[in-house]
Amino acid sequence: MICLTTTVNPAHWLEQVRANQPLVHNITNLVVTNIAANALISIGASPVMAYAKEEVADMARIAGALALNMGTLDDRVVQSMEIAGRSANEAGVPVIFDPVGVGATPYRNQVAAHLTHSLHLALLRGNGGEIGFLLGAGGQVKGVDASAVSDDLPRAMKAYAKAHQCAVMATGAVDYVTDGERVWALSNGHPLLAAITGSGCMATAILGGFLAVAGKQQTPSRYAEAAIAGLTCYNVAAEIAATRAAGPGTFQATLFDALYHLEGPEVNKQAKVAEVTLS
Amino acid sequence: MICLTTTVNPAHWLEQVRANQPLVHNITNLVVTNIAANALISIGASPVMAYAKEEVADMARIAGALALNMGTLDDRVVQSMEIAGRSANEAGVPVIFDPVGVGATPYRNQVAAHLTHSLHLALLRGNGGEIGFLLGAGGQVKGVDASAVSDDLPRAMKAYAKAHQCAVMATGAVDYVTDGERVWALSNGHPLLAAITGSGCMATAILGGFLAVAGKQQTPSRYAEAAIAGLTCYNVAAEIAATRAAGPGTFQATLFDALYHLEGPEVNKQAKVAEVTLS
Amino acid sequence: MICLTTTVNPAHWLEQVRANQPLVHNITNLVVTNIAANALISIGASPVMAYAKEEVADMARIAGALALNMGTLDDRVVQSMEIAGRSANEAGVPVIFDPVGVGATPYRNQVAAHLTHSLHLALLRGNGGEIGFLLGAGGQVKGVDASAVSDDLPRAMKAYAKAHQCAVMATGAVDYVTDGERVWALSNGHPLLAAITGSGCMATAILGGFLAVAGKQQTPSRYAEAAIAGLTCYNVAAEIAATRAAGPGTFQATLFDALYHLEGPEVNKQAKVAEVTLS
Repeated sequence: MICLTTTVNPAHWLEQVRANQPLVHNITNLVVTNIAANALISIGASPVMAYAKEEVADMARIAGALALNMGTLDDRVVQSMEIAGRSANEAGVPVIFDPVGVGATPYRNQVAAHLTHSLHLALLRGNGGEIGFLLGAGGQVKGVDASAVSDDLPRAMKAYAKAHQCAVMATGAVDYVTDGERVWALSNGHPLLAAITGSGCMATAILGGFLAVAGKQQTPSRYAEAAIAGLTCYNVAAEIAATRAAGPGTFQATLFDALYHLEGPEVNKQAKVAEVTLS
Repeated sequence: MICLTTTVNPAHWLEQVRANQPLVHNITNLVVTNIAANALISIGASPVMAYAKEEVADMARIAGALALNMGTLDDRVVQSMEIAGRSANEAGVPVIFDPVGVGATPYRNQVAAHLTHSLHLALLRGNGGEIGFLLGAGGQVKGVDASAVSDDLPRAMKAYAKAHQCAVMATGAVDYVTDGERVWALSNGHPLLAAITGSGCMATAILGGFLAVAGKQQTPSRYAEAAIAGLTCYNVAAEIAATRAAGPGTFQATLFDALYHLEGPEVNKQAKVAEVTLS
Repeated sequence: MICLTTTVNPAHWLEQVRANQPLVHNITNLVVTNIAANALISIGASPVMAYAKEEVADMARIAGALALNMGTLDDRVVQSMEIAGRSANEAGVPVIFDPVGVGATPYRNQVAAHLTHSLHLALLRGNGGEIGFLLGAGGQVKGVDASAVSDDLPRAMKAYAKAHQCAVMATGAVDYVTDGERVWALSNGHPLLAAITGSGCMATAILGGFLAVAGKQQTPSRYAEAAIAGLTCYNVAAEIAATRAAGPGTFQATLFDALYHLEGPEVNKQAKVAEVTLS
C-alpha cells in the first residue's frame, strides 16, 4: 500500500453545512438519539428523528439526507427504515447506512443484507469489523464493537463501491474511504472516541449533513469527498475536545463544544488525508 | 403591542416544587427521555417515564401532572398518550401537550389535531412555529425546529385559550403565554438553548412540575401563572449556565447544575415578564 | 444489628473486568440506554443494547452477563426480556434483574412477579423501596424513586436469596447485599447520585460487568462478592466524581471520568463494607 498525502478542503464543506443548515432525517438507535441530534446541531445542521411508518416517507422526502443506523433493531424500525429508504431513493435524497453490530447475530446479518440489497446507498459506513464482515473481507464483531481489521478491507470496499455505485467508509484507528475508483486513508481522531458509546453513530449522523450539502443524485466520487470532509471535521473536533477533557464524560461535553466552535482553516491545517494505491 | 413590566414571583413557585417534589408523568420522545428526567430532578420534582398502555392510566392518575410530547411518534405511543390523557382528565390532573414538529408531516398534524380535540389540556406549549401552525396563525416548521413567528400569534393563542379554557405558551426569542384573557411576553433565556436538542422538551417537562403544584382542576389563569413561573426559572437557569459553559456540550451539563442550585430571589430579580396589550 | 468491617478486594475484580472486557447484554429502559452503555465502557466492560425478540436469545447466549431493567416497559420488551433471560439461563450466563418502579402500578408488579418467577436470577438489584415491595418487606414506591426502607429489609432479602439461590442487593444511603447466608452493608456513595436519573440503572449495568468475570453458573456467594466489588467501585468513583462537580450535570460527566481512571488500590482503601449480623 502506497500512501500519498492529499490536499482536501473540509473547511469549504463545513461552511456549506453551516450556511444551509440541512435537515438530516435520522432513524437511529435508542442509545444515541440524543447525542446524534446534538452532534448535528453542533456542526450546524438540523436533525430530525422520526420513526413512525406513517410519516417516515414524508420526512425522508423533504430531508437533505437520510441516515439509517441499525444499532437497536426491531421489526417496526426495520420496516420504517425500508419505507424511508425507498422514499429517499425516489426523491434522490442521499441515504447513509450504518450496519451497527452486523456479525453479532443472524438477525442483524439478515437485516443488513436486506437493506443493502433493497436500497440504493450513497454511503455505507461502519467500523472496520462491521464493514469487513458485511463485505466478506474478514473482521470480527464482538457485540457492537470493532475488532481486528483485515488487510484486504480497502480492496473489498473498493470492489463493493464500484459494483454498487456508492461510497464506502470503514472507520478505525485509520479510516478508509472509497468511491469505487480511488481509496483514501484518514488518520485524524483520538482514542477517547472509543471510550464513549455512539462515537461512530455520531459520525454517521454528521456525515448526513455533509452528504446533504453535496446534493441529490450525486456521483459516488462527490459523496466520498463529502464523507472525507465530514469525518475529518468530526475527528479534528475530537482532537481539540480531548485537550479539554479529563476523561470520557467531560470529553462527550467538550466534543459538542469543539464541533460548535470548529474553524474551517484549522481543520484544513490538521487534516491527515492520504490517497492510497493498493498493491 | 404595548408591554407593561409585571412583577411575578417565580421564587414562590420554585419553593413549592422543591417542598412537594411532585411526581410528573412524562410520555416524551426518545431523544430527550434522559435530559427531561434530569431537568425535573434538578429543579426538585420527581419524574417518571412510563409508556405502556397497560400502566399509563394508573400512572397518570397518581401523578401531579402529565406531560405529553410527540417528538417521536408511533401508533403505540399515540395510543398510550390518549389513555394517559383521559385518565389524567378524569382525575383532574393537569395535562401539558407539546406538539413537537407539527407541520412537518401529515401524520404529525393528524396526531396533534386528534390529541388536542380529545383531551382537555391545562397547557399547550410549543415553539412559535409549532403553535402558529397548530392554531392556523402562520409559522413554518422545518423538521422540528421553529421558524419565523407571525405577528398574529399572540392573538390566535388568546382566542384558542379562551375557546378551550386552557393556557397556551409559545416559546422563542420572546415567549408568549396566555390564559385566554391576558397575554404575557417573557424575555429570559439564552441562545445556547437553541444549540442543544430538547431544550423545549425540557421546558415542557419542568412546567409539569409547576403545574403539579398549582394543583388539580385549576383555572387557566392559575396554570398560566405556573407556566410563567416555571419557564422563567428555566430560562434564568439557562442564563446562569451559559456563563459557565464553553459551548453547547458543557452548557447541557451546567444547565442541570444551575437548575439544581437555582435561588428563588435571584430568579425574581432577573425575571423579565411583561403583560401585553394587543392592539 | 451488629456490623463487622470486612476486608474486600474490589481492586482485583476491577482488574479482571478491564483485562477481560466482558460483553454485557442490556435490555434496559429508554431513559438510561446511553448512560448505561457509557458506564460500562468507562469501567472497562463492553456493552451491547439489543431488544429485538429475533436476536436477544443469540445475544444473551454469547454475553458474559445479561442485565434486565424494567424502567420503561411495554409488552414487546417484556417478551424480549423473557426470551433473553431463558437463553441466558440455558447457557449459564448470569442474569441481573432491576425491578425499577415496582409497586408504582399493577402492571409493573405483574411483570416483576412474572420475571422473577420464570427466570433464575444471579442477582436481584433495586433500591430499598423496590426490593422491600417485591419481597413483601414494606417500603413505599412513589413513581420510580426509593422511599423509606423498612428495618426488616435485610432479613427478607436473606430469606429470598436462600430460597431462590441468588444474590440480592438493595441500594440506598446504606446498601445491603446477601447471598442467602451472610449479609453485608455497604456505605460508599454520594448524595449527588440521587440527583441524576438512572444512577441505580448504571449500577445494574456495571454489576453486569463484574458478574460476567465471576463466570457462568457460580454460587450466590460468588455473585454476591462480585456485586459488592462492583458497587464499591461505582460508589467510590461517585465520591471522587463529586469532588470535581459543581452540581448534577457536571457530576454526570465527571462520574464517567472517575470510572475510567479509577484505581483499584484507591477503591480498596476507601471501601466501606461491613458484615452484618441480624439480631
